[in-house]
Amino acid sequence: MLASAKALRPSSSSSIIGLKKGRYWNAIRARNGASLHHDFELRTYSQTLDHFNYGPESYTTFQQRYAINFKHWGGASTSSPIFLYTGDESSLEGDLFAGFLVDHARRFKALLIFVEVRTVKYYGKSYPFGSKKAAFNNSSTLQYFSSAQALADYAELLRYLKKNLSAEKSPVIAMGGSYGGMLAAWFRLKYPHMVIGALASSAPILYFDNITPQNGYCSVVTKDFKETSESCYQTIKRSWAEIDNIAAKQNGLATLSQMFNSCSRLSKTDELKEALEGLYVGSAQYDNPKSSPVSRICHAIDGEPNGTSVLKRIISGMNAIFGNSTCHNFSETEDDMQSGWDWQECTEMVMPIGCSGKNTMFEVSPFDLKKFSLSCKKIFNVNPRPHWITTEYGGHNIKKVLKRFGSNIIFSNGLRDPYSSGGVLQNISNSIVALTTPKGSHCLDILEANEADPDWLISQRNAEVQIMENWIEEYKRK
Amino acid sequence: MLASAKALRPSSSSSIIGLKKGRYWNAIRARNGASLHHDFELRTYSQTLDHFNYGPESYTTFQQRYAINFKHWGGASTSSPIFLYTGDESSLEGDLFAGFLVDHARRFKALLIFVEVRTVKYYGKSYPFGSKKAAFNNSSTLQYFSSAQALADYAELLRYLKKNLSAEKSPVIAMGGSYGGMLAAWFRLKYPHMVIGALASSAPILYFDNITPQNGYCSVVTKDFKETSESCYQTIKRSWAEIDNIAAKQNGLATLSQMFNSCSRLSKTDELKEALEGLYVGSAQYDNPKSSPVSRICHAIDGEPNGTSVLKRIISGMNAIFGNSTCHNFSETEDDMQSGWDWQECTEMVMPIGCSGKNTMFEVSPFDLKKFSLSCKKIFNVNPRPHWITTEYGGHNIKKVLKRFGSNIIFSNGLRDPYSSGGVLQNISNSIVALTTPKGSHCLDILEANEADPDWLISQRNAEVQIMENWIEEYKRK
Repeated sequence: MLASAKALRPSSSSSIIGLKKGRYWNAIRARNGASLHHDFELRTYSQTLDHFNYGPESYTTFQQRYAINFKHWGGASTSSPIFLYTGDESSLEGDLFAGFLVDHARRFKALLIFVEVRTVKYYGKSYPFGSKKAAFNNSSTLQYFSSAQALADYAELLRYLKKNLSAEKSPVIAMGGSYGGMLAAWFRLKYPHMVIGALASSAPILYFDNITPQNGYCSVVTKDFKETSESCYQTIKRSWAEIDNIAAKQNGLATLSQMFNSCSRLSKTDELKEALEGLYVGSAQYDNPKSSPVSRICHAIDGEPNGTSVLKRIISGMNAIFGNSTCHNFSETEDDMQSGWDWQECTEMVMPIGCSGKNTMFEVSPFDLKKFSLSCKKIFNVNPRPHWITTEYGGHNIKKVLKRFGSNIIFSNGLRDPYSSGGVLQNISNSIVALTTPKGSHCLDILEANEADPDWLISQRNAEVQIMENWIEEYKRK
Repeated sequence: MLASAKALRPSSSSSIIGLKKGRYWNAIRARNGASLHHDFELRTYSQTLDHFNYGPESYTTFQQRYAINFKHWGGASTSSPIFLYTGDESSLEGDLFAGFLVDHARRFKALLIFVEVRTVKYYGKSYPFGSKKAAFNNSSTLQYFSSAQALADYAELLRYLKKNLSAEKSPVIAMGGSYGGMLAAWFRLKYPHMVIGALASSAPILYFDNITPQNGYCSVVTKDFKETSESCYQTIKRSWAEIDNIAAKQNGLATLSQMFNSCSRLSKTDELKEALEGLYVGSAQYDNPKSSPVSRICHAIDGEPNGTSVLKRIISGMNAIFGNSTCHNFSETEDDMQSGWDWQECTEMVMPIGCSGKNTMFEVSPFDLKKFSLSCKKIFNVNPRPHWITTEYGGHNIKKVLKRFGSNIIFSNGLRDPYSSGGVLQNISNSIVALTTPKGSHCLDILEANEADPDWLISQRNAEVQIMENWIEEYKRK
């Protein structure tokens, strides 16, 4: 999963919205995932470190981890498919957004393969250099963490596995969500000889190089809150100035620290603002029919008696998600500071997300490439390459480019997901299609089914299954 | 242009057919190319050294050279196309196999861009490390010479040029021959957002990973000679044993040296055999209607009076191409020893070409990956990756894979070209098409037109022009 909006804030100014990936964001996220169960076998593959060059390090390998599940597989002699989960930044032990694959393994008689991606976060254990600490030690060890290397990993591993299982003729479908969804779509586009199709859930492949307006992300979060409750939206919109007002008074930060039950005294208002922004964007991104965090926040904000102050309403909203039994830790931990996703944003995944308009519920904070680059230089000693993703994968005029090129990709999006603003929301051709749900959020469709799933979500999943069955049928016919 | 067949001979055994790229091969090749004329401007671009990683060297740039010709361009405000020549291993000052582009610039009102590829041979001056000598000094400087980096070079340069010329909407067509033809086809497949189509002349994209039988190359050379003259073919077929017979006698190598007018005394029969193999395969590969080297060789071989010995006939064939006024230099020069193409064969372009059958006019010499790998290890300290090209670009079941994926590629082949055995010789879909000419050789169609061109060659070129015009028309309509 992508971090909600920017994970880096240049210097001290709040010029980029969003939250460090810390507990406030993760707390929302964690309620959506599910763990691999015992039907999966954990394995490793000696993966090529550098697929594209031929220097001494290129022949270095690292142990890439993957999980494999044979339980329902029809076998190599049939046309039973292989589902390849193009991993997001989770480790195989973490919360995986992939229940959909497991749910449908029996129906498809599918072999399931979950690959731990090396490019993101080093959450997993597929560290090319032994440990997370070692990997982040300097940029020369981080250098091999790119999307192109990740795609080539899939290709090499698939070739090996298919040969090993005598399954050269088995059709493979790639599936993934968020960053993993981008990888799934790009894998189909770049490696059509490896996969017959891709399900790309909540993949904002157009949120690069200003194809999508900077404001897209913030606008959708705002819309989500506004549609839930106009007064809730108004309260949040007003709260930032209120925080500044109190902070400007004598002992203002102490007052705020106490009001918001901060474990340690706030050192600047940004700590608090970032946490609140993270709460709102995380709730919007991971809003789901079961726990409905946006509704819960707004219900709490609106539910206070008439005359309650703006900030007391905000605190009530926050407590609706995190409770008020313990203090809140608003300060960053070292672990939050550097993540694989930050690294990727500082190199190639430069998504210019900013709140540039006045029509959002956030403070105005346009994306500033120059400031962003300075931060990247400072933290990782690298310069972002803001045009690389569109150079390598395209994006501009995508409808024109792919109308008669490529086939068999599903771009699914929930329109309440702020990242949907950078997604493919219209059919490109007969077989590169968009499935959208007005009430859906980030990656809902590829989660495990549960009893709270509304009909529109069940229909979306059924449509996906139907399309994938058609791909397999067509593959069999040829 | 690809070297004719294998450029490396492992150890001393003649287990791989072919010739070092030396004068004997080049003498044939040079008669086909043409130089850039004064309408071209030479420019350089600060190209990214490593597109796919983010280490310290990744931000290093080198000066990539390209030539640009505005003479006939209709301009950015029209739909006039840009022709991108995906360079082979020639320098911009060398013999370029690209007269076709120049010939048709006026008709298309096209802007012409010839990029000097960094991946091949360092013939050119686009040395990332200053000089050919420096580049070959060790494999750490050679490491960045790969096809994937070359394709990304085109993408980055095109993006820069289109922006620079305000030509973002101008349609681009990639064209190239031989290795450059493979790059053109792969560029269209991997970067459809950059080019609307590709003309891939004599591109043996299926001569990898045993998709094409090892014997394909030798079989076509043999067929060319056999069709020209059965007795010529028989003479050549018998000559290898004759050489061995004489060599086995007292002072045999001295006798052979004298007979073949060698400048220095032959140290082994392989020197002579390699030169002759190179002559035959070069003549077959670059056979053309104007100079017809295969016919000239056979005419000379057959033209000797009855009773002339086999080897005297062979000498007569050789002299028909090279004359007999000076001695022949059969020994290798250091320059022949290491070329960019050798490097590429030793890393990714592993084409298993061997004469494994008894039905060729050559000695039996199957491709032996193990021996080949040992040579590569010895010369460049690298191991070949024989499955990489098909992993990265596909090739297996190409018709099935691309039938409903991709569009707008012309694969043109002359069936007398031994590399056509690894080419795409049948239409894959309505818009991924094969144009073949039974009498054509390597890259004939993309050479400059001349008065000796037969009708079938003119027709092939016209068909290509027609298809490309359709691509542009279709692009304009959308």
